[in-house]
This record gives sequence, structure tokens and C-alpha cells, in this order.
Amino acid sequence: MELWEKQVESELVFDGAVVHLYKDKVELPDGTYSMREYVKHIGAVCVIPITDDGEVILERQYRYSVDRVLIEIPAGKLDYVGEDFCEAALRELREETGAVASEMIDMGDYFGSPAIMGEHIRMFMAKGLTFGETELDEGEFLEVFKVPLSEAVEMVLRGEITDGKTQVAILRAAMMLK
Amino acid sequence: MELWEKQVESELVFDGAVVHLYKDKVELPDGTYSMREYVKHIGAVCVIPITDDGEVILERQYRYSVDRVLIEIPAGKLDYVGEDFCEAALRELREETGAVASEMIDMGDYFGSPAIMGEHIRMFMAKGLTFGETELDEGEFLEVFKVPLSEAVEMVLRGEITDGKTQVAILRAAMMLK
Repeated sequence: MELWEKQVESELVFDGAVVHLYKDKVELPDGTYSMREYVKHIGAVCVIPITDDGEVILERQYRYSVDRVLIEIPAGKLDYVGEDFCEAALRELREETGAVASEMIDMGDYFGSPAIMGEHIRMFMAKGLTFGETELDEGEFLEVFKVPLSEAVEMVLRGEITDGKTQVAILRAAMMLK
Repeated sequence: MELWEKQVESELVFDGAVVHLYKDKVELPDGTYSMREYVKHIGAVCVIPITDDGEVILERQYRYSVDRVLIEIPAGKLDYVGEDFCEAALRELREETGAVASEMIDMGDYFGSPAIMGEHIRMFMAKGLTFGETELDEGEFLEVFKVPLSEAVEMVLRGEITDGKTQVAILRAAMMLK
């Protein structure tokens, strides 16, 4: 079955500081036309840091778009197009938690909301952690804490961790490390 | 630690068919100000259908925003503000796969991309399935297929399933049903 759609026209309808929103005319597999509104995104990384004691480092962060404080793993956008995902993940880990990792395991891709968000996140597990100073971006407020990985899994199953990339990273880490 | 941000001003900067994009001025926890660009969303549901034989029903769907065919579980937006999540999940399941479920298990919330997307997804597991006709929305092209749940888990771990809600639903279902 043919599933792909072809771009016919593309219009940048809002060019913000963070959000670059496009409205494209596309040709559907049956030859008819439709419009697609979507956010173009430079790409991002997230990283689940596991300490030598088997604890996960997590962050509480207020997310304005959903008006909730969410529990998340460290994450952030690429600094420039084509930046190495692993280097970006090491940077975000250090800036947000102060941790430096001696081992980074690539856990593959995550598309969190692909109907609208063109955000491609590459996911890593960080091990062999040592700790230094944090260095938050301006206007970034985080509360960092640690829980055993088994407790983090329970927090996902109980519905206390609702951020998608964090749910995936915790459940995958639990399966990989058991 | 104070984490919450307060709305100072709100502006609708793009009011599309699907995307409603806002740019708000917010007061940060330290009393300074910042701007937040985000997509307001009516809410959505997703549902992992498990057959009596322990198979998962999945869909291949082209996602224009990421220019990939993704493997996903059935999902869709609410039809109106305040629609019951479970009724919406039953509808999307029936429309996209033809399945009717006699048991729906609430698996809690999923926020796929909360830095920008104000999309709140409620996740369900559907069991006790019987099958009738599909009824796709106009312009919706899907390829429906089934795999054993254990194989779906391997597809997540091998990086073949990259849609976030689908990764979460499969890994959680495997933990709940083992």
C-alpha cells in the first residue's frame, strides 16, 4: 500500500524564537490534495543517567504548554544543524545535572508527537557518572533528584511520570539492565 | 524550589485547521520575564489493542512532519472539548482497525513533547476484541498489521518502532501482562 505524501507547496506561517511553523500543500497517495500544519525542529537529545548505585537522575520541570510540573530525564535541542547527538547529550547532561559520563549507550530514536511536531529525539543511556557543577540555561529552572531504577519503573506504572521520552527511557533501561 | 510560571500576556499567533499556536509572556520563578511559544491542543487518546492470542494490532502511517512511515498504535484527537477519553479511544480503535473492545484498561497520561506541544494523550489497553469494518477519516491512509506482543517489544528495543506513545504502550503492556 502506498503511504507517502508529496510536498506541492510549503509556506512558513510563523517564524518564532523556538517554533517554526509551516503549512504545506501535499499530494496524498490517492492523488488528492490536503494541507499539513507542522513544526520544523532542529532535533534534540535526551539521556537517562544511571549512577553506579543503579539510581536514575531525574528532574522536576514546569512545562508551560501543559501547565504541569513534569518529571523528566535531561534533554535539550541540538545547538546547530548536524551537531553530533552524543556530544549534545553529554552537554545537556552536564549542564542540567553536573554529571559527566564515561559511557554513552545509543538507545535509538523517539518521535513524541509526529502528527504535528517534526521533532527527532535521539535517546541515550549514560553510565560511569562523576559529578561536577551544573550550568543551567538562562530562564531554566529545574529540581534534580535521584531514585532507584526499580522505583522509577513503578512511578511510570503508577502514572506519576507522564513525560513520554522519560517513560520510554526508564522502561527500556529496566529491560536492558535486568 | 519554586518552578511554576505565571501567564502575563497571551497572543494567538496562528489559528490553523489543526495547529493553534500561542506566544505568551510569562513571569518566571525568579520574577524575570520570558516568552513561551506553544501549541494548544484539544487532547487525544491512544490505545494498544491486544487480541485474545496475545498479538498487538499496529499501523504503518506516513507522518509528514518527520518524513517517515512510522509504526503506531491507533490514536486520534478528541472530537470535542471534554469528550470522554475512553469513548474517544473506542471510536479511534473501531475506525482505524475495525476492532470493538469489551475491556478498556486506563494506562494513564502521556505528554509527548511538552516543551512546545500542549497535547495531553490518555493511553488505554483494549482487550476482548471482536472485528468489524474499518472507517477511516478522509485523507487518512493506514496499513494495519499484527505481531505477537513479545515481537513488538523486540521491535522497540531494536529501534524499529520509534513513535513515542507506541514505545510506551508496548513496554508497559509487556510489563503488565507478563
